[in-house]
Amino acid sequence: MKRTVITPRTLRGFADVMPSAGRRRRQLLEVLEEVYTSFGFEPIQTPAVEYAEILKGKGGTESDKQMFEFEDKGGRRVALRFDLTVPLARFVAQHESELTFPFRAYNIGYVWRGDRPQRGRYREFLQSDADIIGVSGITADAEILTIIATALGRMDIGPFTIRLNNRKILNGVLTRLELQDRVPPVLRALDKVDKIGPAAVADELAGAGVTAAAAQDLLALIGSVQASNEATLSHVGASVKGSAEGETGVAEVREVIELVSAALGAPAPIRFDPSIVRGLDYYTGMVFEAVHDEAPGAGSISGGGRYDDLASVYTTSRLPGVGVSIGVSRILSVLDGLGRLSDLPRDRTLVVLTQDLGSDRPELMRLAAAIRGAGPFDVELYPAAVKHATQMKYGDARGARFLLTLDADGTMSVKDMESGERASAAPAGVPALLSKLAGGA
Amino acid sequence: MKRTVITPRTLRGFADVMPSAGRRRRQLLEVLEEVYTSFGFEPIQTPAVEYAEILKGKGGTESDKQMFEFEDKGGRRVALRFDLTVPLARFVAQHESELTFPFRAYNIGYVWRGDRPQRGRYREFLQSDADIIGVSGITADAEILTIIATALGRMDIGPFTIRLNNRKILNGVLTRLELQDRVPPVLRALDKVDKIGPAAVADELAGAGVTAAAAQDLLALIGSVQASNEATLSHVGASVKGSAEGETGVAEVREVIELVSAALGAPAPIRFDPSIVRGLDYYTGMVFEAVHDEAPGAGSISGGGRYDDLASVYTTSRLPGVGVSIGVSRILSVLDGLGRLSDLPRDRTLVVLTQDLGSDRPELMRLAAAIRGAGPFDVELYPAAVKHATQMKYGDARGARFLLTLDADGTMSVKDMESGERASAAPAGVPALLSKLAGGA
Repeated sequence: MKRTVITPRTLRGFADVMPSAGRRRRQLLEVLEEVYTSFGFEPIQTPAVEYAEILKGKGGTESDKQMFEFEDKGGRRVALRFDLTVPLARFVAQHESELTFPFRAYNIGYVWRGDRPQRGRYREFLQSDADIIGVSGITADAEILTIIATALGRMDIGPFTIRLNNRKILNGVLTRLELQDRVPPVLRALDKVDKIGPAAVADELAGAGVTAAAAQDLLALIGSVQASNEATLSHVGASVKGSAEGETGVAEVREVIELVSAALGAPAPIRFDPSIVRGLDYYTGMVFEAVHDEAPGAGSISGGGRYDDLASVYTTSRLPGVGVSIGVSRILSVLDGLGRLSDLPRDRTLVVLTQDLGSDRPELMRLAAAIRGAGPFDVELYPAAVKHATQMKYGDARGARFLLTLDADGTMSVKDMESGERASAAPAGVPALLSKLAGGA
Repeated sequence: MKRTVITPRTLRGFADVMPSAGRRRRQLLEVLEEVYTSFGFEPIQTPAVEYAEILKGKGGTESDKQMFEFEDKGGRRVALRFDLTVPLARFVAQHESELTFPFRAYNIGYVWRGDRPQRGRYREFLQSDADIIGVSGITADAEILTIIATALGRMDIGPFTIRLNNRKILNGVLTRLELQDRVPPVLRALDKVDKIGPAAVADELAGAGVTAAAAQDLLALIGSVQASNEATLSHVGASVKGSAEGETGVAEVREVIELVSAALGAPAPIRFDPSIVRGLDYYTGMVFEAVHDEAPGAGSISGGGRYDDLASVYTTSRLPGVGVSIGVSRILSVLDGLGRLSDLPRDRTLVVLTQDLGSDRPELMRLAAAIRGAGPFDVELYPAAVKHATQMKYGDARGARFLLTLDADGTMSVKDMESGERASAAPAGVPALLSKLAGGA
């Protein structure tokens, strides 16, 4: 019977994770969970699919356009989540009475955006969010920034920089320029400066009713990064002089950098950068994003900020907070671009046991279990009695350190693929022999 | 400005994971990844959204009906994955040339089914699949069963039983009864015996053109579980006598139980049960499912089997394999039903540092980091200088073991919530003091 074969393929912007990337992904997630937990954060999860009305209308119209929205079989308008922040707001509003505030939560999961796919930008990607909800003030901001610096540092992905700004600074300047009723369009325009350049931003600002002089003021402010944070702080401090909100913003940035440096016991990898806006409307204080220093063009590997009224769409309680998204898929993509996706060494030593037609298979199963129990060994029993050379070739291709063969006389031959040497032992002595050989390397 | 509040709610069948369940979920996933890795399995991931034509037509018509299918903004028919097995088949066919066979892979992810929601059955649930692809023979089956037994055992969820059968046994009997051209409808009918009872199954078999005598034969076979596996094997062995396929099936079950017991160093928690069918059409050999002994009515917490031609829809290569799905959401639901979802003790000791308006916050950040670095401590700095009593109450509600207050004179007061005792030390001495107090508990 001849049958039609369906060409195996994935949707554009949706990628399989291959084993080498999968190992890196696991390591990144382990670091994240370890770091979050050590700061007292609790794991939560929200569904991938929610009522469309819940997910829409918070992130802004661009998010809404990119949402995967559809009607389910019960006729409900539903959508795949666009980020983890809006679901968190819904979660906190819904379970408010069951939670202890300030509530520290982390949530690791996929999000979906119908963005134009391009290198490093997927339509499905894995994010990891951590938030402290129910409190104002910069201690929480400093803890979140410390978490970013600690987690990215422990991931061993190379040098990175957290670009930090405070919305209060821009708000102060906008008030001085009498643009306080045009904050969202102005911020959205300024947010594009890295992408489209200052001239195009000036045009967009003009379109939003900003005078040329005010636009020049704003562009000068966001273009004022100096050699040191202190120099930038002085420079920006001068331009917000007289605006209480702007001066508070500058003071908060200075103090938060000091707090993070204290926690890290070293200068924080933070650069105060007044051009950081983060387009989303809900931020009200600190805003930040991290870039990999060797791939700054790849986009931010992390971003977040303080919101003073996130859940107001779902509850009359005021729930201020601060949070970060760490882009796990983005980090994997950056490492891939740097040719460093597969450079993670195996945690443990791989052992492959071969088998022949006459092999004592219960003995092989017992031995595999004994080796796993004896130390940091991953053990595979080759699952078929095919040609011995095929099995040895397989073990080599897998990167096994030890290939084991049970001989007809009941002794086990060990081939050490690292040294090329051979040894043998009675099965009961094999775990100890392997531990010795592996330890001596 | 008055604004409308959207009632925060999730879709029916879609559940939030609260922190206590989230901790359990994390522990289950850690055990699974640890066990899979120790058997040489590699982590892979496939997208949640795929072309509908890729996902449909493999699992059977019931799966197709339950699929969340929709048109994306580019006019493509897409769907949320229904299981992790069909995407794996597509993955292996697509990446065949890049993989080393036999290919051992695990994939942990959510799947979506538009099932009628009921207790323990969600429309979105987390599964964890492990498969060995590219090889026939029962060694791989035995490794998969050993993985299930090892993982469920290490999860510390209570007693469980793996119910095991072999499709070859039923196939042998069906051939003897001259029903070989009606295998799928007969298996689907037999698969329902636990749910609808033997009388209704007999009716359904009659509808599929099975004679009353043959139906009685089949029902007797699948109802023949005896006190011991050996007794059931003898009984079933007698009824397949003369069918080579049936006899092979019985011999394979006997040997696989022996192999798993050898690996575990104890009798395998496996019960040979000829009524296990697993409705899906693609199984060809061993089939199995695990139930929690204290909640057998909650449905299977794991299931799988051997398929000899899984990827044939996507490739002309023949790729036999064996795999298991472990139902992480189902296990959490079973533990919840048993009142044991929150009984996981904290891995590490929680410490809460309080702060006052005049506190030396850099000192507090430094100290929090030092305590984290000193041992198994999770440390929170209370993120606002609110009333001290509020902060102490928070620490208590969070289950903190130690509450710390930096006094005006620069010494740190420690309250041990377990013993009720108080101690104090210079900040630099606090990590050692906490280690001593925690170690002495």
